[in-house]
Amino acid sequence: MQRITVQYVTPADPETFDRKYAEEHVPLAKAIPGLERFTLSHPRSMAGDAPYLVAELWFADQQALDAALGSPEMAAAGRHAAGLGVATTMFTGEVAEQ
Amino acid sequence: MQRITVQYVTPADPETFDRKYAEEHVPLAKAIPGLERFTLSHPRSMAGDAPYLVAELWFADQQALDAALGSPEMAAAGRHAAGLGVATTMFTGEVAEQ
Repeated sequence: MQRITVQYVTPADPETFDRKYAEEHVPLAKAIPGLERFTLSHPRSMAGDAPYLVAELWFADQQALDAALGSPEMAAAGRHAAGLGVATTMFTGEVAEQ
Repeated sequence: MQRITVQYVTPADPETFDRKYAEEHVPLAKAIPGLERFTLSHPRSMAGDAPYLVAELWFADQQALDAALGSPEMAAAGRHAAGLGVATTMFTGEVAEQ
């Protein structure tokens, strides 16, 4: 599958971030066309700095990913994420079973 | 599912790293007891610094993850990863469908 990963650092106000993320951002992300799965994880570090939140958007193939990236729904979700005011690292790539 | 994520920075010698990872590390990781899936991704950055390689070990539940973490196979894979000489960030957590 193709995946977009968004890693958020720890927010200054985690409670407000968590509320806005759940109530506002999740519905925006789930509206993105072609999205097969949307997964969230609040990881614990085993080595180095773990992200506060890892959000993953899963797509069937490159075509579906490209269509999603060009959609107004993705633009809206991206604007909303930026408005959360928390630094992110964002990357995309194929996830291959070994 | 429960997941261990290992993110590697770009190696000084990517060709040697890739060869050792594929030939030596993948078999060690796949031998870890209770492992349901082992996935790899070489992502492209969309914002910030993307990892060079993201390796993910997927487990059915916390019990399977804990058993794996205590196994000699996990210890062997961890020693081998450290020997690759590339900085990693490693974290674990539940991955929840939204």
